[in-house]
Amino acid sequence: MERTFASDNFSGVDPKIMEKLMEANQGHAFAYGMDPLTIKAKEKFKEIFGDVEVFFVFNGTGCNVLALEAMKGRATCVLCPDTAHIFQDEAGAPSKITGMQLLPVPSEDGKFSIKAAEKFLSFKGAIHKPEAHIISITQATELGTVYTPAEIKNISAFAKRNNMLLHMDGTRLSNAAAALGCSLKEMTADCGVDVLSFGGTKNGLMFGEAIVFFNKELAKDFFRLRKQNLQLHSKMRFISAQYLGLLEDNLWHTNASKANSMAKYLKKKLVNLGVEVTNDVMANIVFAKIPMDAVEEMQEFSYFYLWNEYKKESRFVMSFDITEEDIDIFVDKLEDVLKKQSIYLSEGTCCAS
Amino acid sequence: MERTFASDNFSGVDPKIMEKLMEANQGHAFAYGMDPLTIKAKEKFKEIFGDVEVFFVFNGTGCNVLALEAMKGRATCVLCPDTAHIFQDEAGAPSKITGMQLLPVPSEDGKFSIKAAEKFLSFKGAIHKPEAHIISITQATELGTVYTPAEIKNISAFAKRNNMLLHMDGTRLSNAAAALGCSLKEMTADCGVDVLSFGGTKNGLMFGEAIVFFNKELAKDFFRLRKQNLQLHSKMRFISAQYLGLLEDNLWHTNASKANSMAKYLKKKLVNLGVEVTNDVMANIVFAKIPMDAVEEMQEFSYFYLWNEYKKESRFVMSFDITEEDIDIFVDKLEDVLKKQSIYLSEGTCCAS
Amino acid sequence: MERTFASDNFSGVDPKIMEKLMEANQGHAFAYGMDPLTIKAKEKFKEIFGDVEVFFVFNGTGCNVLALEAMKGRATCVLCPDTAHIFQDEAGAPSKITGMQLLPVPSEDGKFSIKAAEKFLSFKGAIHKPEAHIISITQATELGTVYTPAEIKNISAFAKRNNMLLHMDGTRLSNAAAALGCSLKEMTADCGVDVLSFGGTKNGLMFGEAIVFFNKELAKDFFRLRKQNLQLHSKMRFISAQYLGLLEDNLWHTNASKANSMAKYLKKKLVNLGVEVTNDVMANIVFAKIPMDAVEEMQEFSYFYLWNEYKKESRFVMSFDITEEDIDIFVDKLEDVLKKQSIYLSEGTCCAS
Amino acid sequence: MERTFASDNFSGVDPKIMEKLMEANQGHAFAYGMDPLTIKAKEKFKEIFGDVEVFFVFNGTGCNVLALEAMKGRATCVLCPDTAHIFQDEAGAPSKITGMQLLPVPSEDGKFSIKAAEKFLSFKGAIHKPEAHIISITQATELGTVYTPAEIKNISAFAKRNNMLLHMDGTRLSNAAAALGCSLKEMTADCGVDVLSFGGTKNGLMFGEAIVFFNKELAKDFFRLRKQNLQLHSKMRFISAQYLGLLEDNLWHTNASKANSMAKYLKKKLVNLGVEVTNDVMANIVFAKIPMDAVEEMQEFSYFYLWNEYKKESRFVMSFDITEEDIDIFVDKLEDVLKKQSIYLSEGTCCAS
Repeated sequence: MERTFASDNFSGVDPKIMEKLMEANQGHAFAYGMDPLTIKAKEKFKEIFGDVEVFFVFNGTGCNVLALEAMKGRATCVLCPDTAHIFQDEAGAPSKITGMQLLPVPSEDGKFSIKAAEKFLSFKGAIHKPEAHIISITQATELGTVYTPAEIKNISAFAKRNNMLLHMDGTRLSNAAAALGCSLKEMTADCGVDVLSFGGTKNGLMFGEAIVFFNKELAKDFFRLRKQNLQLHSKMRFISAQYLGLLEDNLWHTNASKANSMAKYLKKKLVNLGVEVTNDVMANIVFAKIPMDAVEEMQEFSYFYLWNEYKKESRFVMSFDITEEDIDIFVDKLEDVLKKQSIYLSEGTCCAS
Repeated sequence: MERTFASDNFSGVDPKIMEKLMEANQGHAFAYGMDPLTIKAKEKFKEIFGDVEVFFVFNGTGCNVLALEAMKGRATCVLCPDTAHIFQDEAGAPSKITGMQLLPVPSEDGKFSIKAAEKFLSFKGAIHKPEAHIISITQATELGTVYTPAEIKNISAFAKRNNMLLHMDGTRLSNAAAALGCSLKEMTADCGVDVLSFGGTKNGLMFGEAIVFFNKELAKDFFRLRKQNLQLHSKMRFISAQYLGLLEDNLWHTNASKANSMAKYLKKKLVNLGVEVTNDVMANIVFAKIPMDAVEEMQEFSYFYLWNEYKKESRFVMSFDITEEDIDIFVDKLEDVLKKQSIYLSEGTCCAS
Repeated sequence: MERTFASDNFSGVDPKIMEKLMEANQGHAFAYGMDPLTIKAKEKFKEIFGDVEVFFVFNGTGCNVLALEAMKGRATCVLCPDTAHIFQDEAGAPSKITGMQLLPVPSEDGKFSIKAAEKFLSFKGAIHKPEAHIISITQATELGTVYTPAEIKNISAFAKRNNMLLHMDGTRLSNAAAALGCSLKEMTADCGVDVLSFGGTKNGLMFGEAIVFFNKELAKDFFRLRKQNLQLHSKMRFISAQYLGLLEDNLWHTNASKANSMAKYLKKKLVNLGVEVTNDVMANIVFAKIPMDAVEEMQEFSYFYLWNEYKKESRFVMSFDITEEDIDIFVDKLEDVLKKQSIYLSEGTCCAS
Repeated sequence: MERTFASDNFSGVDPKIMEKLMEANQGHAFAYGMDPLTIKAKEKFKEIFGDVEVFFVFNGTGCNVLALEAMKGRATCVLCPDTAHIFQDEAGAPSKITGMQLLPVPSEDGKFSIKAAEKFLSFKGAIHKPEAHIISITQATELGTVYTPAEIKNISAFAKRNNMLLHMDGTRLSNAAAALGCSLKEMTADCGVDVLSFGGTKNGLMFGEAIVFFNKELAKDFFRLRKQNLQLHSKMRFISAQYLGLLEDNLWHTNASKANSMAKYLKKKLVNLGVEVTNDVMANIVFAKIPMDAVEEMQEFSYFYLWNEYKKESRFVMSFDITEEDIDIFVDKLEDVLKKQSIYLSEGTCCAS
């Protein structure tokens, strides 16, 4: 298959973004962000998010880690759901770079549980304890679920009450916004988020992520932290141009909506086939119990991740460019494989019935 | 009360250790460990532990963190029970100093669960995962339980099978050895431990801990790591002399045995009073459900920690110098308080019945 | 002016590279470097450099710092000329990320002086000293000078004799090779360099740098170090494609030669004007004493850096796209400014004479 | 010889301090600094230094590094004389622990040169530069010289003017105060020092150093930084008791004066012998050109450091317990050795003439 469901970073660059890159490639420009495109892109962010400071960085892990670094102060640790990307999928980068310990909180559907987090409150002010001054949540979550604005406000209030800052890993923020039908600002600035990692690469950019400071105090001297932590691009205009492309004409929303609807479409098709879908498909991710005997052959046909061997869950992520046809081809093939192997699905009837 | 059950670092210095300090204070000596007492102390460690490399450091957190630093190589994280001192009680020092992420494994009775740890094995070799190359266990555990040599061997074998190193936080190793009736070597070198933090301060020293490398390869250049991580004492003889005192004539064993037996004595007295003791009292720590209404008054009488508010458990640690009389006084007072407050204990009868 | 001499990162993307980016944007590809273009690019590196390991990263500071991180082992510091980019222009990133101290060695013409470095040899093996296990040199240097292969071999031999590794910051390696008329390999692998930072961004790429390990032992587990230190691009093919563009048909050489010859052209024109050129113009950088009264007006006309206020030196860097016409326009303008201000140059005659 | 001139950490513990340690060893006390002796010691510091915050740590490197850590904020580097202990003799600990780069400033007589430091002012505010927010000076210096209060005030004013903080490494502060005949406060608080490392170990303590914050804002949350950076002693009373001993009855002054006068005595004796003394002997250190042929034999007789092979300087440090007799014996031996070897000293006459 030309397109896969492995991840939204297996896809390439949105053609509209590619055009922006070509347009940006005119003559010389001031390096390190003092060029007109970067200035324009920052203005665009202010239009959308309100009175914020924005800094562009290279990649998702860099974006999350630098957000935490900016929030660090004298904090010693970060509370996050145990499913968090920063805890599970960044190879220890947050602790390596910031020196902070991560305190994983047992999560429900990939979401931060205030109840579970409360047991760590006794660490506050205790001389020997790893004291959390930061909470990090992911929107949409790694499990494809989405926080409602009310849920985010609750977490934000919990954070404030307990003298903590709130970080949002918004790698798939666009998908969450599209799912909820609300603006980017309604889920972030309006909910008391202090710092946002606003993802680009997974929504059709070639490279580039944005750190958005709603709490502008934290942005102080951040230009130096960015350089010092290896995330300052000299030819900055080429990130800025992409973000302009993403934000102008709401390309972010168009792409995210498409991906979300493809996830719903895949879910429907899988369920029709008798395959169990295990998550609440709100954004662009589907978790499904592909029969284990069929996984390998299907991965060879079109790669995807067997996410959790214990639970036998496979993960399917929809990129901006996935079409119904892609899904039809995949599910047809799956049907064939299951039939061929006479795999009986949960319903007790053969998938092919 | 002159003596408390708050912690084995509320106690002072064993008189025999104090004598050693005075003896060591003769004239000048080479600094940084090139003095005769340090050489002698290192020999003593070899007598006891076999062919090891030993380095003295200042304090317990320093000892644990530097052991991990020496084991780090290119590891990105450390597996440990979620009750581990390095996870719960070192204010984030392990991540701050080594840059490694800690992966807390749900524990049973304070012990490392191989079964629970297995789910992290899928992280091995995965490019994005925080990959553990180190397991850290505590002997005796923070919950006052003790691993048998067979249990340690199992964990060590699990570590080796999965290309991990084994660290033992032996802050209360002496108490564990005394409890099991085995030698220090039988629980460490003979069980496949790679690096041991062998505690001194909590067993009657003024200051000073020892890092023992069974895996001598890991000790390479450690002299520099120690300096660089702030744990090199210039007047080293004053740590070495104390360790000589602790190891000669088996003072470590005498002190640990005394403390362990006092814990058993306290347990008996509390149970007689109707107070529930919640841990398996093997070493020198007792966890008990002192009625919450009595906690504050008893803490004022003689300080101890309310360890877990949720479980209503208080912790009592026996130092080397605790006597039966100390315990009698404390329990008598507790009886008075309970009576005065007419607190009915779990049996449903008044404690004073 | 459309093009400036401020830096070779003020320029945009070479059109041939832009084409490569568009070609790479076909369908989905495995992320994180397991795509066909990355595999092909790595093969290309082996053709050129011999039996090496190659890793792509985002930017120059990331490239240098990760090279040092890979070489670190238990080293505590890095010897480098006091003019080194890692010492002067990376905002402390090397120490922040690797934890190593930098020992600046007084330099001559931007080059590493073995004689000056020898005084730090007494630090080797000394317990308290910041012991260098790494030497870092820059080719071409920050002052626009170029090491001959013989000079590099001398430094490499000095490093080996004293148990140190050799890193080369090759941000402008292409310019050095073009200047010397030798291959990339002749200046690196053949001279005993252990790890090379091979620059792309300053030679016409949009983003992306390459770390080349001649000492392959050091590349062990580097894939994890790269992730952990924020330099792993998910859509790797877009860096790989650019490097393919740079290496195929020797674009690197074409671009570098052009830039170098423009530097010589600028030098000639400046000298004709009576402006003193202070460096030996071998690569693509010219340092010249633009009269201080003229600096600001000229910067407004076309930006460049006043490099050293004390020495009154301005720096001019030629990008791959600079033309003779660009230089003519600039020097004509300079002549006007000097005339207008009646600035007399060193010769004692007016510049316009 | 029983006593040496190698370093003031080759000496043992002052008998008065030893008494204090024994007195402190009564019963149990609150750990981690909440004991009466620590409270009393802190009061004593306030009597002497004014309105300060004090924290005790283990050792000199720990003391300096934690002072810098507390001052760090978002600074990226530290300016210090190139002779500074933090630059030369802490095995890279400052960069390892704080992540900051050290910028060594060429020094005069071991002192910080404002003139030489000025060239780094252009780094301030520059995005790529390692920007210094901290200046660190040593009193008395590593070369045995002493800053006058006026000199310190000048440096402090320079720091303030340029938005930098001032740290003083006062490992031998007592010696400096005794040399200048001024109080500890007159050289520190009154001169605008922000944070002081006030040494104990080199002035007769068994272990223990004090960090004194004149700038109390920087002490915020420092209790956690101390724990996290491995410098929190559980049995704190044993450091506090020693500092009480040092400060009560001005023991610090008595000891420092004695050591200083012994340095002057040694200087006189060496000069009489025709040996060149190369430093201005103000505190307790003498640098002298012992003829290279005699160094080894004399080191065997009584160890001292050949400080600078290039300059042929040996270093002699006077501890609190050095007597005139110790010096007489040493110099007599030196005379013998020189005679035996017929070594002619600088005067051109034999030393024994």
